[in-house]
Amino acid sequence: MITTAHRHTLTTPTDRTIRVERILDAPRDRVWRAFTDTALLAQWWGRGNKVVIERSEVERGGHWRYVEHSPDGGVHGFEGRYREVTPQDRIVRTFEWDGMPGYTILETAEFTDLGDGRTRVVSTSLFFTTEERDGMLHSGMEGGMAESYAALDKLLAEMR
Amino acid sequence: MITTAHRHTLTTPTDRTIRVERILDAPRDRVWRAFTDTALLAQWWGRGNKVVIERSEVERGGHWRYVEHSPDGGVHGFEGRYREVTPQDRIVRTFEWDGMPGYTILETAEFTDLGDGRTRVVSTSLFFTTEERDGMLHSGMEGGMAESYAALDKLLAEMR
Repeated sequence: MITTAHRHTLTTPTDRTIRVERILDAPRDRVWRAFTDTALLAQWWGRGNKVVIERSEVERGGHWRYVEHSPDGGVHGFEGRYREVTPQDRIVRTFEWDGMPGYTILETAEFTDLGDGRTRVVSTSLFFTTEERDGMLHSGMEGGMAESYAALDKLLAEMR
Repeated sequence: MITTAHRHTLTTPTDRTIRVERILDAPRDRVWRAFTDTALLAQWWGRGNKVVIERSEVERGGHWRYVEHSPDGGVHGFEGRYREVTPQDRIVRTFEWDGMPGYTILETAEFTDLGDGRTRVVSTSLFFTTEERDGMLHSGMEGGMAESYAALDKLLAEMR
C-alpha cells in the first residue's frame, strides 16, 4: 500500500508497520522545537483543536499525555512513554489512545537535515499485531495526520 | 523451547511470545483475589521483596504501577494499563519495567477452573520484536517468576 497525498507518503513496509514520510520546509532545529516544545506542539498536534499537554517529559523513561478537545465536546486523551530521545535526530516512544487502552503502538520519528533548509521526518509505527495496524489504517488516521501536518507547516512558517 | 520447573511450564509458541502455564492448588475465586486485591498482590508479586502498589485500577483503561524494593536497596518500578478485565476469567494489560522504558509487553492472563478445587493460570506475553522477547528469556525472568509463584502458593494456602 502506497498513498501520496498532502505532501506526505504513507507506506506499509511490513505487516505490522505504517511508515509516513514528509518533507518539511524548515531547518531541523526548528522542526525539533515544534515536536518537543509543549507550547509549540499544542499549536499543531490537534489539527486546529485545542490540545492540553498534561505531561511532556521528553527524555528516556519520561511520560507524555496530550488531551485533544474537539469542537463537538469530544475529549480524546493520548499517552505513552519515551524509549529514546536523541536531540534533533530521533524520538522513540509508545503511543496509545484512551479509547483503546493497552493497544500500544511503538512510534519512531527520525529527523534528517536535507542540507537545503528543509527537513525530512520519517515516522514509523509498529503495532503488536497486523489486525491492530489495519485498524489504524482504516480509522481515518491519514486524514487527521494530513491536517496536523498542514497545521505544522503553518507553524513552521510563522517560526521563521 | 520448553522448560518445566517449579510446577510451571514455559513455552515459546511464536517468535514473539512467551507462554507460562501453572496449576494452582486453590479455587478460581481465591486466585482471582490474589491477582487483583492490592493487599494480597503485594504479598507475593515481589518474591518476598517489599512491593509498593502505587496504582492499581483493575478495569479497562485503568493504570497500574508496582514498585519493588530489594534488600540491597534496589528500586524497580513496573507499570502499564489494562486493555481488558473480565472477572475471574481474563486480564489483558501492558507491562513495562522502568529500566527499559517503552519496551512494552502485552500480557494476557487466563484463569481456568479445573473443577477439582484447582485453577490453571496461563500467562502469555507478546513482545514488539523477537529480540525483545529473547532479551526477556535471557534476563533470569524464569527464576524470578518461580519465586513469585512459590510465594503465591504459600499465600493461597494461607487464604483457605
